[in-house]
Amino acid sequence: MAAPSPFADRLHDAIRRCGAPLCVGLDPMPERIPALFGDAREDVAAVANFCDAILEAIAGKCAALKPQLGFFEPYGPVGVAVARDATTTARALGLPVILDAKRGDVGSTADGYVRATLGPDPGFEADCVTVNPYLGLDSLEPFFAFAEAHQKGVAVLVRTSNPGAADLQDLPVDGAPLWVRVAEMLAPAMERLARGRDWSDLMIVAGATWPEESRRLRALLPKALFLAPGYGAQGATAADAKAGLVGGLGGVVSASRSILYPPAAAQARTMADWRTAIDAAIEAARAELSAS
Amino acid sequence: MAAPSPFADRLHDAIRRCGAPLCVGLDPMPERIPALFGDAREDVAAVANFCDAILEAIAGKCAALKPQLGFFEPYGPVGVAVARDATTTARALGLPVILDAKRGDVGSTADGYVRATLGPDPGFEADCVTVNPYLGLDSLEPFFAFAEAHQKGVAVLVRTSNPGAADLQDLPVDGAPLWVRVAEMLAPAMERLARGRDWSDLMIVAGATWPEESRRLRALLPKALFLAPGYGAQGATAADAKAGLVGGLGGVVSASRSILYPPAAAQARTMADWRTAIDAAIEAARAELSAS
Repeated sequence: MAAPSPFADRLHDAIRRCGAPLCVGLDPMPERIPALFGDAREDVAAVANFCDAILEAIAGKCAALKPQLGFFEPYGPVGVAVARDATTTARALGLPVILDAKRGDVGSTADGYVRATLGPDPGFEADCVTVNPYLGLDSLEPFFAFAEAHQKGVAVLVRTSNPGAADLQDLPVDGAPLWVRVAEMLAPAMERLARGRDWSDLMIVAGATWPEESRRLRALLPKALFLAPGYGAQGATAADAKAGLVGGLGGVVSASRSILYPPAAAQARTMADWRTAIDAAIEAARAELSAS
Repeated sequence: MAAPSPFADRLHDAIRRCGAPLCVGLDPMPERIPALFGDAREDVAAVANFCDAILEAIAGKCAALKPQLGFFEPYGPVGVAVARDATTTARALGLPVILDAKRGDVGSTADGYVRATLGPDPGFEADCVTVNPYLGLDSLEPFFAFAEAHQKGVAVLVRTSNPGAADLQDLPVDGAPLWVRVAEMLAPAMERLARGRDWSDLMIVAGATWPEESRRLRALLPKALFLAPGYGAQGATAADAKAGLVGGLGGVVSASRSILYPPAAAQARTMADWRTAIDAAIEAARAELSAS
């Protein structure tokens, strides 16, 4: 078997194939999943049906899938199994998977989270995983080491898209906000995971709602891939979202609710109508994000 | 059914019953679980057997159980099910459960993690859950709101026990380290979750390896419960670990490997020998931590 290509290359291939730096966030919200799929408030099978239908609809039309574990775990272990199945299916369809887990722990616990998220069966075998930097570099090292050895990506939270991000991330540290210090701290990992290439397998989460911060982050971490959540339902425009993206290869913009739950889909009475609504939503996002 | 008592009261009852502020960390490490239980590197049933035997050994002899999800998730969804079963069993035995998940996310994702960890079946229904503050107060609010409504605890990472904790947590913000600013940010939540009582259902993670920081944190958050990891295998002494604990009711000290994997247990050839080794380890920790 040929060695896999680096995560950045796999993501770039997917961006070129679909023509837009669009990542679809897989956020199964029980009260928004149409009854066509079953009652997702009661039955995890409805969630599985919904995820399968979404994957079929978006394959080839976006650059990555971002399953959000926080929407699967409330269903218990069977919900985790659905998320893992969606990951396996997406990868089989050629979609790189960025698992949104936001894990962060130390030592052998961090090793466990690496195996659970990036590792092979019974792990998720995702292409990339989101991690939280609050515990420091030694908590990130097991992820970096595994990424380096297995051509995976690691997406570190730097400046998130929520209003409360300012509470800690904007606190001033020697004249610059904390998120700048976090970005500076990641520079060696960026180089290490670039392995001499133009783009690194280090990804950073830089909320699409903060375009000025994204541009500053781009200057600090020129080779890092960006994961920009907040586009669409959270209010960021396509221009905002692309602020740090550099010619379409600098990362992906993530959209969840605007793709999964467009108003027309809520009113669909047949699966064909639902699919038409989803197709329209994904085409609208692709058109906005591919326009230069 | 009578309303449950607040988390702090349940924890205090457990501390008084067993006579020591000892929390046992449930960290199933595949390579350290004795072959008596099966091969934990291959078979999650060995992990379940081990957890059951540990729970039987520690019931009534410690004040809380802290299952570390990072050691269960590598087994996949069935591993998560084992962690949830251990939580259910521990609570049935009268042991409050602090689920070590270190979750942190925003909005409806945070709501999902609340349901998954503190919520009833199919959630874990833990008594308390560890959370990461990097995303700010709006990411913690769903946990605080649920804790307030359901008498649960929330344990926020403030100063962790790992060497790399200094990378972010010690950065200077207007003359004080970041962890002090995080503690200050939590003061309103401490009061809110105290509901006029002496002790709050807000818990903070303050590594046992940093006794001076623990004393400073105690001054900043006088009503908060402390969760002090790092005692035993991570090198903190009992005196270090108890630095912030205030007369035995200010929180719990967590020990994992020193209780689960004492050297004598590794050599045990029978279940009775193994149990003798575990009993000795827990008695040693209780004696150290109950001494004033």
